[in-house]
Amino acid sequence: MKTRPNILETGTPLFCDLYHLTMAQAWFLDGKAEDYKVSEAFFRKCPFGGSYLMAAGLGEFMQWLERWHFSKEDIESLKNDRNEDGSRIFNDEFLQFLEGQELKVTIRAVPEGELVFPNEPVYSVSGPNWQVELAEAALLNIFNAQSLIATKASRMAYAANLDGKKRPLLEFGVRRGHELGGFSETRAAFIGGAAGTSNKAAAKHYGIRAAGTMAHSFVMSYEREVDAFKAFMRGNPHNTTLLVDTYDTREGIKNAIRAAKETGIKLMGIRIDSGDLAYWGNEARRLLCEAEMPDVRLAASNDLDEYLIENLIMVQKAPYDILAAGTKLVTAYDTPALGGVFKTKSYMGQPKIKIAEGKTTIPGMTDTLRIIRNGKFEGDVICRAEDTDLIRDGRLTRNITSYALGSQNGARATFQRGEQAKFLLHPVVEKGKIVNVPELDLHVLQQRGKDNLKMLDSAYKRLANPHLYGVGLEAGLFTLQQDLIRVHSGR
Amino acid sequence: MKTRPNILETGTPLFCDLYHLTMAQAWFLDGKAEDYKVSEAFFRKCPFGGSYLMAAGLGEFMQWLERWHFSKEDIESLKNDRNEDGSRIFNDEFLQFLEGQELKVTIRAVPEGELVFPNEPVYSVSGPNWQVELAEAALLNIFNAQSLIATKASRMAYAANLDGKKRPLLEFGVRRGHELGGFSETRAAFIGGAAGTSNKAAAKHYGIRAAGTMAHSFVMSYEREVDAFKAFMRGNPHNTTLLVDTYDTREGIKNAIRAAKETGIKLMGIRIDSGDLAYWGNEARRLLCEAEMPDVRLAASNDLDEYLIENLIMVQKAPYDILAAGTKLVTAYDTPALGGVFKTKSYMGQPKIKIAEGKTTIPGMTDTLRIIRNGKFEGDVICRAEDTDLIRDGRLTRNITSYALGSQNGARATFQRGEQAKFLLHPVVEKGKIVNVPELDLHVLQQRGKDNLKMLDSAYKRLANPHLYGVGLEAGLFTLQQDLIRVHSGR
Repeated sequence: MKTRPNILETGTPLFCDLYHLTMAQAWFLDGKAEDYKVSEAFFRKCPFGGSYLMAAGLGEFMQWLERWHFSKEDIESLKNDRNEDGSRIFNDEFLQFLEGQELKVTIRAVPEGELVFPNEPVYSVSGPNWQVELAEAALLNIFNAQSLIATKASRMAYAANLDGKKRPLLEFGVRRGHELGGFSETRAAFIGGAAGTSNKAAAKHYGIRAAGTMAHSFVMSYEREVDAFKAFMRGNPHNTTLLVDTYDTREGIKNAIRAAKETGIKLMGIRIDSGDLAYWGNEARRLLCEAEMPDVRLAASNDLDEYLIENLIMVQKAPYDILAAGTKLVTAYDTPALGGVFKTKSYMGQPKIKIAEGKTTIPGMTDTLRIIRNGKFEGDVICRAEDTDLIRDGRLTRNITSYALGSQNGARATFQRGEQAKFLLHPVVEKGKIVNVPELDLHVLQQRGKDNLKMLDSAYKRLANPHLYGVGLEAGLFTLQQDLIRVHSGR
Repeated sequence: MKTRPNILETGTPLFCDLYHLTMAQAWFLDGKAEDYKVSEAFFRKCPFGGSYLMAAGLGEFMQWLERWHFSKEDIESLKNDRNEDGSRIFNDEFLQFLEGQELKVTIRAVPEGELVFPNEPVYSVSGPNWQVELAEAALLNIFNAQSLIATKASRMAYAANLDGKKRPLLEFGVRRGHELGGFSETRAAFIGGAAGTSNKAAAKHYGIRAAGTMAHSFVMSYEREVDAFKAFMRGNPHNTTLLVDTYDTREGIKNAIRAAKETGIKLMGIRIDSGDLAYWGNEARRLLCEAEMPDVRLAASNDLDEYLIENLIMVQKAPYDILAAGTKLVTAYDTPALGGVFKTKSYMGQPKIKIAEGKTTIPGMTDTLRIIRNGKFEGDVICRAEDTDLIRDGRLTRNITSYALGSQNGARATFQRGEQAKFLLHPVVEKGKIVNVPELDLHVLQQRGKDNLKMLDSAYKRLANPHLYGVGLEAGLFTLQQDLIRVHSGR
């Protein structure tokens, strides 16, 4: 049986919506295919009621871009696409145009592990009209999914360390994810802060730690639970965490202690996967202390999310050392979609705007200035990409006035010349050539995410009703937006 | 840059949780790796508050199984897996055992497009203990995701035809899905009833119809909307659906009409993607009638789900002909996970049971008898797999008494000898060899899904608070379950 293709490996431009191709044909026939355009991706609302998004996915998007080309098979497929009346959708002239095309777009992007906020550009793609469009679906598919799950993981990892104690968050989601094999989900969860994954294939591919305990099925394969525990300890003597709730949790804990004593093998941990996690955590700790095994680690699982973790740790003071999350993490359960969009920002050098309530876009090619004060993110200012001289040697070269988004009521903040600042977008592709290979080592990306989160005040990381991070428009860009709004309302 | 592997193509058994392998090692060292075991997959609760699940994913699961083997690279990866103390997780003796292993399991499965209900077996896997376990994660990953989305699609397609009028449901979800490239999501949505997809790569691979309209970006690439519409019509003269809400929806509708008149090209459709869909649908229809273009089709999009579709069609009588759904469909937004599980049902020929409130399992190897009366599904009875003589020539060979699940209060229904019936599980793999290649043509699978849904009374398809379909336990299986519960409560 033939399996699905690896679209990153094929680099097929058909990783798009059909309309990207029918629009390309119309532009081509109208002589506008090569018009110079800028489109940018951004999102309007943070998932999970949070205040930030952790960007993820760039490394995999670039793998597709690197191989981008129309294969003979792609052209053949387009030749066979039919309208309802049986006529061909794509004509020969257009297909000849596509054959042998090379990538010509220029791309700037927010690195993975960076924190971004609503309305800030996360990808800026410029170049020939038709090629800019053909990047949209792939870019959004990868960015939306991976950023969503990286953000979810970062929230859960944050909750897991709320009292200052380090507790690894493990990702155990492969059986409940939407992604075939769970690769995207494991990758994104690791960037967001998961210390390891149960997913062996993904762990192998990404070079990260595979982790796990044991299943109820192992216990059920023995007549007596204690025999199952002893066999598992003998089979895995250097890292045994026993699952104690197959039949009776209290007996299970006792059997785990007994198995350790009888085998003489060090019991590393006990996992509780059902019932009242706080109660059983305390009970396990009590029985382990009685047995003079105080250093056995306790692991909790069973539909954990950041709210349950926060409650377990901060309210119930449950004595867990390790937290394992599956379903709620890899499906981003409470906000299962990120609405990242990709909009035309300028066309043939003319800035473009879309005007709609709550959806009015920021015109022109942009970047984000992030102001850093005392080692913390102080506020962001969306600015014109051409204003590269706003920063020199990591400092603002002049005072910046920032205008509130969506308001006509004037300035919201001023940042002083000399303040520490950085731009968020980095060049990655220049006229089709990769100019900066993105970091692919997930450990480095995870560390970057952690470093960024350290620089975000905890008020913004509060799980519910966080403080909203300030994002404004630089004065020149604000004026451009207001001018365009006036032009449109006047016509 | 190296891209991720295609795990279906590699057939890697590492498509598992790490604990499947550490358990295998413990069994191997304890001489229990080859013990004969039966495990079955089932789910406990239907998603979306519905009453049924449409099974999907088998075809892709089988593609992985067909190639199942440990590559040198897989063994090497396991050799390098480390415990926290730096010791190897897997020892040489176990890795030698794995090398060159062939698949030996036997599998029966519910075909794709079949409807299943809570607690019914959807996969039954038997064979050597360790190999049965190694199928779990792959099976659940594919089954959970694809069945969830097929079911969501079936609900939306049902809503789209509630008044008896056929309205195609198109899947436009690639940019919001969790699946890299959206292959799983497009595949499952099509099986569930989507008439086409915007996802060109997936449409090509699965041989299904790619569909689409145009984007706001096309309109924004022209100074005047009407010029954009005319260019798009000239570029795609045989199937033009124009998106009319880029600037002003009423003007957009008028411009679409004008573009058709001025180009002389037939306008196939108008798409509305924002605002009050009912109002603008009626307004578009009115303006099209005034222009004597009554046969132009109206397409609606913008966060559609089954409830909004039901309301648009049945309550607001909005005059749409085509419905396109993205986010809510491909992320299964309101229930983004299906909790399919895989449980030990018998071990070395002894039936096994897990006893827990609301989670007590049905022991032994099972199948489901579906009773069909007057062309409708009348009720299901979970029975012992060995009772193959319950049906001959599609008819019950004896009266069947069905006992309510989770109750000790006796029979809930009786089905008479001679009633039409079928078993739901079909043999697909026999001792590692594929004995029935599953249907892979998605058109056939979609038709099967439609045929099945026709046989399900509409009371069960009600979107909210549906009637619950009757599933019971066959008398002999009920007795076995009660006996095992007694044995366990006595010990």
